[in-house]
Amino acid sequence: MFGYARSVTSLSAAIDRFAPAVYRERLRRAATAAGDRGLDALLITPSPDYAYLLGYLAPPLERLTCLVVPADGEPSLVLPRLEQPLARSELGPLTEALTLVAWDETDDPYRRVRELVGGGALRVAVQDQMWARFVLRLRATLDPIELVEAGPTMSQLRRVKSSEEIERLRAAATAADEAMRAITGERLSGRTEAEVSRRISQHLLAAGHQIAEFAIVASGPNAASPHHQPGERVIGQGDAVVLDIGGSRDGYCSDTTRTAFVGEPSAEFAAQYAVLQRAQAAACAAVAPGVPAAAVDAAAREIIADAGYGELFFHRTGHGIGLETHEEPYLVASNSEPLEPGNTFSVEPGIYVAGSWGARIEDIVVCTDVGGKRLNTLSTDLHLVE
Amino acid sequence: MFGYARSVTSLSAAIDRFAPAVYRERLRRAATAAGDRGLDALLITPSPDYAYLLGYLAPPLERLTCLVVPADGEPSLVLPRLEQPLARSELGPLTEALTLVAWDETDDPYRRVRELVGGGALRVAVQDQMWARFVLRLRATLDPIELVEAGPTMSQLRRVKSSEEIERLRAAATAADEAMRAITGERLSGRTEAEVSRRISQHLLAAGHQIAEFAIVASGPNAASPHHQPGERVIGQGDAVVLDIGGSRDGYCSDTTRTAFVGEPSAEFAAQYAVLQRAQAAACAAVAPGVPAAAVDAAAREIIADAGYGELFFHRTGHGIGLETHEEPYLVASNSEPLEPGNTFSVEPGIYVAGSWGARIEDIVVCTDVGGKRLNTLSTDLHLVE
Repeated sequence: MFGYARSVTSLSAAIDRFAPAVYRERLRRAATAAGDRGLDALLITPSPDYAYLLGYLAPPLERLTCLVVPADGEPSLVLPRLEQPLARSELGPLTEALTLVAWDETDDPYRRVRELVGGGALRVAVQDQMWARFVLRLRATLDPIELVEAGPTMSQLRRVKSSEEIERLRAAATAADEAMRAITGERLSGRTEAEVSRRISQHLLAAGHQIAEFAIVASGPNAASPHHQPGERVIGQGDAVVLDIGGSRDGYCSDTTRTAFVGEPSAEFAAQYAVLQRAQAAACAAVAPGVPAAAVDAAAREIIADAGYGELFFHRTGHGIGLETHEEPYLVASNSEPLEPGNTFSVEPGIYVAGSWGARIEDIVVCTDVGGKRLNTLSTDLHLVE
Repeated sequence: MFGYARSVTSLSAAIDRFAPAVYRERLRRAATAAGDRGLDALLITPSPDYAYLLGYLAPPLERLTCLVVPADGEPSLVLPRLEQPLARSELGPLTEALTLVAWDETDDPYRRVRELVGGGALRVAVQDQMWARFVLRLRATLDPIELVEAGPTMSQLRRVKSSEEIERLRAAATAADEAMRAITGERLSGRTEAEVSRRISQHLLAAGHQIAEFAIVASGPNAASPHHQPGERVIGQGDAVVLDIGGSRDGYCSDTTRTAFVGEPSAEFAAQYAVLQRAQAAACAAVAPGVPAAAVDAAAREIIADAGYGELFFHRTGHGIGLETHEEPYLVASNSEPLEPGNTFSVEPGIYVAGSWGARIEDIVVCTDVGGKRLNTLSTDLHLVE
């Protein structure tokens, strides 16, 4: 009955579930931030933002479910009548902080939103991942209206993690380290990438993730594709194998990459890997409050470029992480925003030689008052495997 | 590295993988349909529509990946450079039918789309599930532009299934029947809903699904919540238990519901269930080419209303199914569109008494030249369990 490749299991695991007071406070801060930006309201459909504000994730389906957070006044939740019992039970005591507005199958839910947001020339922000059909129908029904992205407002709230959130991220990172230790302790030679990927999913779950989200296993020439889909290639002697794995634990995500090598690497490969390792360490060391995100990217990129591999590192250095695997802040050359204490993000430079090999090293790092601290604790050395 | 609760496994399983000629033909028909609607182009971000047109599913992430299908001219795929190797390998021979336009981390991908779509006053359709951030940024960069929903065009293509697609849906339905038979052959009494739900996931996979997408187990008073999240309630004697389960097999979805009863139902419950069973059978029997979708909904609703339970059946009778669990056509009172041969949809009336019990029966039905044919073959009788 639910839609588009989302399991009931992942719905219930994709929430963080702090005390109801946490969500009341988040809703209050979202309203204030909306007012500060001159917005009349935030419209938040089921998404990580929705889970951040309400502590549960409604199924993202074709029927409109929309949290309306006005800059002034109480928030409301517009939802299909058949979702109301689930919402009440998931919201628990938080139900009191919201007006639930249930619509029937033949109602127009967009009018319900208009009644809540008010009339006149409006300026309203829509959740970043809201479906286009909802955006276009809201625009038509709420006209005249200026629609802007809710992203900056939600990111302002979500990018600075509380100590409880950092502890959840640390627990997820520790679980991912455990899975990485387990898979690099096994023989990889003679197994297909797909087989090793499935095995990693088991390790991720065994280590305490509720969701094993991804397990990239990219061997030999496939390692040159950063988002390689593990396939039927059999891992063999002399292969570098990029293992990029992650999942979520109590609602927070893990994401870590190590490069394994089957057998003994050549001196040339070892030298190239040493460059990557220095670059990743330099980027981690560059993290501090006030440092622009771009500077962390530059710290890694400079070392790789100086060694003559600049063209072979063609993606950004990292992405924020929290309720989502990818969120703000992004560590990319175009992002001059300063890092703040409580920011959490990946640091993951790579070197990719098309048709031949690739390597990447990735840790989750938290920016603290005194600099960056890695949440992953596994050595970044090349992992020699059989 | 991937985002928002989507596993690599589900990415690769969420595709259908017919011969490349199938996708060439689909791309051609999409362009023609766009032209017929007076559109300059379709913009399709990763989604079931994307998988339908290209035979693979790119990760739906914060970096823009966008298939541009102009009404005239060749289609192009705008994508982040780091996704290009994956796209090439997934597209295979279909790569020749497309221009790949890779953008670098600090490029503006929206300008790339504008270069492809052309200038002047444009009328462009955006994929229904495209993220709001992409919609708003495309609108800003392509201005002046009229943005409309791609839904009607894509649905026109996707709602009439080919015989190969119907066979995939039949195989998925058969696998779901097998899982339903397995779970209703077990003792349910004394187990929690969550435990039974996890067990159903195992049965779905064992029966040949690659993804176990959902397994609603709603017992006793919880059965009155159509989208109940299985929880810690222990199933006991005298409980009606709604089992609504599904997954995907070779890219196509299953979705079936049966109601189980622990022990012997009262005469009153049995009479109410008989009404539901008649309503579901009547709706299935009402299916024929040219019959409005609303008439199938009415066929079920009338019987339930005549028995005095009209208020207790508060959702539509069904939804289309294919690459998505929910797609067009929707069997709802407001949909007067006639059914066509090749349409596939659920028929799933329910009766829900808040605080006390609920029941639902759901089959997938295909509309053929000579009427509706159920793809599920399990009896719709109440399943008596221990």
